[in-house]
Amino acid sequence: MRDPFGAFCDFSTAHLEGAAGGPLAGLTFAAKDLFDIAGHVTGGGNPDWLARHRPAVRTATVVERLTEAGASMVGKTHTDELSKGIFGENAHYGTPTNPRAPGRVPGGSSSGSAVAVAGGLVDFALGTDTGGSVRVPASFCGIYGIRPTYGRLPFDGVITQAPSFDTVGWFARDPDLLARVGSVLLSYGKPKSRARLRRLIIAEDAFAVADATAAAALTPAISRLSSIFSQVERRRLSSASLADWLRHQTSLQGREAWATFGDWIDRNNPRFGFEVADNFLRGLTVDDTALASARAFQSARKAELSTLLDGETVVCLPTTPFPAPPAGQPRSVMWRLRVPVITLTCIAGVLGAPQLNLPLAKCDGLPLGCSVLAHPGGDELLLDVARRVVSG
Amino acid sequence: MRDPFGAFCDFSTAHLEGAAGGPLAGLTFAAKDLFDIAGHVTGGGNPDWLARHRPAVRTATVVERLTEAGASMVGKTHTDELSKGIFGENAHYGTPTNPRAPGRVPGGSSSGSAVAVAGGLVDFALGTDTGGSVRVPASFCGIYGIRPTYGRLPFDGVITQAPSFDTVGWFARDPDLLARVGSVLLSYGKPKSRARLRRLIIAEDAFAVADATAAAALTPAISRLSSIFSQVERRRLSSASLADWLRHQTSLQGREAWATFGDWIDRNNPRFGFEVADNFLRGLTVDDTALASARAFQSARKAELSTLLDGETVVCLPTTPFPAPPAGQPRSVMWRLRVPVITLTCIAGVLGAPQLNLPLAKCDGLPLGCSVLAHPGGDELLLDVARRVVSG
Repeated sequence: MRDPFGAFCDFSTAHLEGAAGGPLAGLTFAAKDLFDIAGHVTGGGNPDWLARHRPAVRTATVVERLTEAGASMVGKTHTDELSKGIFGENAHYGTPTNPRAPGRVPGGSSSGSAVAVAGGLVDFALGTDTGGSVRVPASFCGIYGIRPTYGRLPFDGVITQAPSFDTVGWFARDPDLLARVGSVLLSYGKPKSRARLRRLIIAEDAFAVADATAAAALTPAISRLSSIFSQVERRRLSSASLADWLRHQTSLQGREAWATFGDWIDRNNPRFGFEVADNFLRGLTVDDTALASARAFQSARKAELSTLLDGETVVCLPTTPFPAPPAGQPRSVMWRLRVPVITLTCIAGVLGAPQLNLPLAKCDGLPLGCSVLAHPGGDELLLDVARRVVSG
Repeated sequence: MRDPFGAFCDFSTAHLEGAAGGPLAGLTFAAKDLFDIAGHVTGGGNPDWLARHRPAVRTATVVERLTEAGASMVGKTHTDELSKGIFGENAHYGTPTNPRAPGRVPGGSSSGSAVAVAGGLVDFALGTDTGGSVRVPASFCGIYGIRPTYGRLPFDGVITQAPSFDTVGWFARDPDLLARVGSVLLSYGKPKSRARLRRLIIAEDAFAVADATAAAALTPAISRLSSIFSQVERRRLSSASLADWLRHQTSLQGREAWATFGDWIDRNNPRFGFEVADNFLRGLTVDDTALASARAFQSARKAELSTLLDGETVVCLPTTPFPAPPAGQPRSVMWRLRVPVITLTCIAGVLGAPQLNLPLAKCDGLPLGCSVLAHPGGDELLLDVARRVVSG
């Protein structure tokens, strides 16, 4: 397969022919190397994981749903190690090339899937999103991407990171295909009639996290989005600071990630990029008090937002606080950049809410995404918003 | 070169012919891949270090001294990553085989050099010892090895880890060759007449760190050693607990190691075995208060021991608290084993004192070393003790 962007894992030849005549017939897709394909080892972005696991016995349910619907899987794509990373720089396999922002990171951890879609190598691609791993590369690569409602798609046959946050997401270059894939994966029928959407909330506390130039660059996108809603409201999303959202979400995710991988790491002393090892070790330091406090915070935020996020309300926020940063920078630089990125992505994680990246903006000539977020279960609403904001 | 034990780096062909007619003429040696050889990249046990450095412009002074004295360097040997490790298990290059304890670790970080000597592949070998990296593999592999007085040998052209503790050391299979190499490296003449040695102190606090079976296994070695001294005394080495020695030495070494490598790690996000990354990150957490307290502790211990360690006194202690543990164990197991190992080796590090491993014991059929330690500057005394305890 032609792969000028280094999106695909060269150690895997996994390929699955789509069934004839389904709703996705004739389409091709790629899957992040976190998804099991029967007969192939799932590599997880780490060569020691790859070397020390056996071929999968069965194929992940979501992949099967897609091939049964007619789409053909043409390859596995690179990921940050064990999905721990947000920029797409893998210390073992390198950094897939961002087709729409040369010299910039593609975003991660679903880096290869986003790049394969942005570069036109496949029609759509599967990723996972635990802490932002679909939304961030969608924003940086200028494509559509959705993190669906937590728990809505089956996660079996996918490498778990933090089970309370792990989701399967997907990318496409246009909102119609994003929705077609969604109708297969989410098992819903035709969208409802094009009733006017009720309320759009522009989340001021989230926009305050973005760089000023990025926030300004999103203004035209916000206008387009606003035009399809009958009511537009600017307000804070939460009474709590987003710094607190991030702190507690990081505790929860980090502790779960260590619970997931700690024993394997202990037994195998695997090689990791230093950043990834550091990230894992931070999870190890989360004590029971911090964990209990984080869980209480999460419950409080879900309660707080449940009144705001009714079935007809959509929240608008920047997907990322800036466009893709240059690749190859020191980790201390990337670590500082990481904080505002995951401050924005943690919101949907804490709430279990769906979030969809609209690639509607450019900032300094680079793609920048605007997000819509809805109540848990509101995936179809978001897919509909994406189509309507483009068709006008 | 024949290398049945995996001691040598297969990516390096560094070889230096010895000058004709010197005191070490006809002998072969190996050097840990921390020593610069002009025209070759020094790999430091890490493939990203190897890939991101240029060939050395000149050869390390100690290597030149040896080749000028007639010895030929025949290859570079494996090391724990950037000398951070005590067991010789390298996540990238594997574990050199301990020729005298199959299935057991060789000890590190000078693993390949110890293995090359123990396996008879070379006559002697160079290692480095910052926190035990010559003494531990000497004990585990059943050979002679010396950590000389801190600062006595030039360290130029050697990859630094913690400059206040780094030393060049060497291994040999017999005490005569250990001393011959010593006379070249330390530039001393013929040993003095065989006067009876005055005082041997058997360090009870150090023996208390060893496993009971290991301490018992050292009894015959202690007897042999005692027989060449006119006075033998059993007593504690220090009024401070060895746990405190370890804690402060770990702070000093860890902080220095981060100062040495932190910027390179930041810029390169290199791949490390998880254990090594963890080890580096612990150094990062040492704050200025801990550092000041550790420095004060070190000064106090040097003062305390300076009265005990006169020019005619030698301390006897177990080199390691047990023989080589099985290879391939979980890192949590190795981490627990590491504590008593470095509790013993930190003593010489804190004092800047020389320590020499005598391979005089077996425990459960495995090699176990007994150490002699002297005042800073007493290297010749220790080399003389080694020859005399064997010749009787």
